[in-house]
Amino acid sequence: MQGKLLYAQSGGVTAVINATARAAIARAGELGLPLLAARNGILGLLREELVDTARLDPRALEALDHSPGSAFGTCRYRLPAPAADSPPYARLFAVCRAHDIRAILYNGGNDSADTALKLARASRIAGFPLRVIAVPKTIDNDLVLTDTCPGFGSAAKYIALATLEAGLDVAAMHATSTRVFVLEVMGRNAGWLAAASALAARRRDDPPHLILFPEVAFDAPAFLARVRAIVARIGYCVVVASEGVRDATGRILAEAGGQDAFGHPQLGGVGATLAALVARELALKCHWALPDYLQRSARHAASGTDLALARAVGRSAVDWAAAGRDGVLAAIVRLADTPYRWKIAPVPLVRVANRERRLPRAFIGAGGYGITPAARRYLAPLIQGEAPPPLAEDGLPLYAAPIAANLRRRLPPWDETAGK
Amino acid sequence: MQGKLLYAQSGGVTAVINATARAAIARAGELGLPLLAARNGILGLLREELVDTARLDPRALEALDHSPGSAFGTCRYRLPAPAADSPPYARLFAVCRAHDIRAILYNGGNDSADTALKLARASRIAGFPLRVIAVPKTIDNDLVLTDTCPGFGSAAKYIALATLEAGLDVAAMHATSTRVFVLEVMGRNAGWLAAASALAARRRDDPPHLILFPEVAFDAPAFLARVRAIVARIGYCVVVASEGVRDATGRILAEAGGQDAFGHPQLGGVGATLAALVARELALKCHWALPDYLQRSARHAASGTDLALARAVGRSAVDWAAAGRDGVLAAIVRLADTPYRWKIAPVPLVRVANRERRLPRAFIGAGGYGITPAARRYLAPLIQGEAPPPLAEDGLPLYAAPIAANLRRRLPPWDETAGK
Repeated sequence: MQGKLLYAQSGGVTAVINATARAAIARAGELGLPLLAARNGILGLLREELVDTARLDPRALEALDHSPGSAFGTCRYRLPAPAADSPPYARLFAVCRAHDIRAILYNGGNDSADTALKLARASRIAGFPLRVIAVPKTIDNDLVLTDTCPGFGSAAKYIALATLEAGLDVAAMHATSTRVFVLEVMGRNAGWLAAASALAARRRDDPPHLILFPEVAFDAPAFLARVRAIVARIGYCVVVASEGVRDATGRILAEAGGQDAFGHPQLGGVGATLAALVARELALKCHWALPDYLQRSARHAASGTDLALARAVGRSAVDWAAAGRDGVLAAIVRLADTPYRWKIAPVPLVRVANRERRLPRAFIGAGGYGITPAARRYLAPLIQGEAPPPLAEDGLPLYAAPIAANLRRRLPPWDETAGK
Repeated sequence: MQGKLLYAQSGGVTAVINATARAAIARAGELGLPLLAARNGILGLLREELVDTARLDPRALEALDHSPGSAFGTCRYRLPAPAADSPPYARLFAVCRAHDIRAILYNGGNDSADTALKLARASRIAGFPLRVIAVPKTIDNDLVLTDTCPGFGSAAKYIALATLEAGLDVAAMHATSTRVFVLEVMGRNAGWLAAASALAARRRDDPPHLILFPEVAFDAPAFLARVRAIVARIGYCVVVASEGVRDATGRILAEAGGQDAFGHPQLGGVGATLAALVARELALKCHWALPDYLQRSARHAASGTDLALARAVGRSAVDWAAAGRDGVLAAIVRLADTPYRWKIAPVPLVRVANRERRLPRAFIGAGGYGITPAARRYLAPLIQGEAPPPLAEDGLPLYAAPIAANLRRRLPPWDETAGK
């Protein structure tokens, strides 16, 4: 292909997104294609904060494969609707022209797929020759038309592990201490991570005992009756709750009140809300945990399957850009459950962006508080395999530090107020 | 020695307390001493819920070495002051007599040392021949006269790891998202776990940027000024806060309102309180995490040093009981920092119980928001080394299930209302 590739990371980070970056950079190197990276996603392209990956220390690049977070930085930034004279698009294409960028690999989730599609459309409107490939990444697992999203498997493994370990804690202490434990997990609209907690249960009555999904309307009296019955039978109850649990009217159980850059409510607090409810209505001692960012950054406990997927989508995206593909997502296609077999295949972005994949009804069982065997078959392979990062002598992993821009600017600074 | 040993676990669980149990059981086996275990600490002795460890599946016993939680169950239960006619003591000695128990290894923290000392005193008052050895265990690290407490090193490693991983997350996202992240860690009166977060910082400006200790009075304006300055300089700020942070009047910053069985306030909420303060006063987006039980049950990320200590105290306790020792704690004595060298030595319980080891002034630096090189020298070896549990094919560790009582009762049921 002519020109350079640009790789950028966007949206929430994961334990394995940097492995996608590393794979893309390595594949571009194999093909002899120059690859730049933008700092902070699309924002770095607007601001002309670019990294020439050829100038990076090879060992730092190698470390990306086992480093969580987002080494190039990421952003939550919504582009306006594509239009010929829209300032951000004019700027984006000016930066691409200045650096001979002819393909963008945009690594993100749902909002990033929207950004990628807008970029693809805007380049056509502007007549600027730019290929756009979306590379999936999101712990929410809510992109449609891909079997899963890299990052999800590792977060799912973390949640299953946390449920297993905290479950043993509560089991050991419940005679004189905590009877009900609530683990609040990420998942604004889709209960995939909450569902993954069920993988911790190997035997009957193992935690989690109740799972609350955003897809199932929360009914307080029914929930309390279940908790009471489980405590009466087993002695304690472990609840896993999606942050986005809502009641029958659609009102989210616990709203922090803020909003993110996309106008989504910023959540947090369903754990505290449920714990207070249980303590008040059932007079049972209740604890809750809120792993927050820990669940999406826990590279130390990453899933080997997830890591393999993260690498594969990065590699395929480069191959497709080189082959002239445009406006597609590097989707994962499941070929078999056990053992898990898969391939990467292109899916048109127009079929992916601005859609959301929630837990299908067939995956929700146990009266709305658990998962079905079909869900378990789907989830199980995604957390399998190990991929421990190398540890330093100090007992902690050696992770890559954030990578700064290293390309000289060729354009005047971007007017941050333009297009707002 | 004559008679049997009884082993019991008490107080909060840890990632490695079961390794102490396993080591004690194995050592007793080597010495040909029968060893029983009580379900739920002293409560199991009162209720005559006992386990004959000789009847357990050897593989289940082996699994204890890598299983978090407390396989025999634990309790929070305060004995009354020792007195000749006190119902709980009469009952305890009756159960010991019925099962020929002549030595108790009580594995716990500060409250458990108090229980052990009371037992030792009551046995003398009652003229019942019982040796009592306290075996240290607490993630709080607040027992005096021992270099550290098994369980702390693994929780400390978890907190350092969480700070490292979440720190990279915030570093990657701060351009358009969270600027301030608060990690709330356990530590009611002592800031040892909060201090351990500092091990995540290898380079200048690495997270954590501010640590809040229970030992340092919280000053909101000074804290906010620090947060503002750090965000201005680095772009984001990672705060690690002990649950027990309090103001100059001694008022705990965030009280959940409840109390545990020992009358300690049940905490939780300093993360939320600080996040709300930062959002309100500095208008910065703030997230917080509350790992709660996850931090003390994360056997998957345990410290190898901690595991070695946990095994050693269990083994020594059996040796001392066999040698007729009474009323001592199996304390850890540090011989060298780098590499860490140590031995186990007996310390009279009377010098340990009802005292609390807080962070010394010489360990708190950076204006009250960080640790000194001396603290780092002390903490560093405790999180070193790996001890990963075996993983099953499903991608999760194979942990021991709780162990039920298997000894037939010889006495009538214990009247739970006696001595209350």
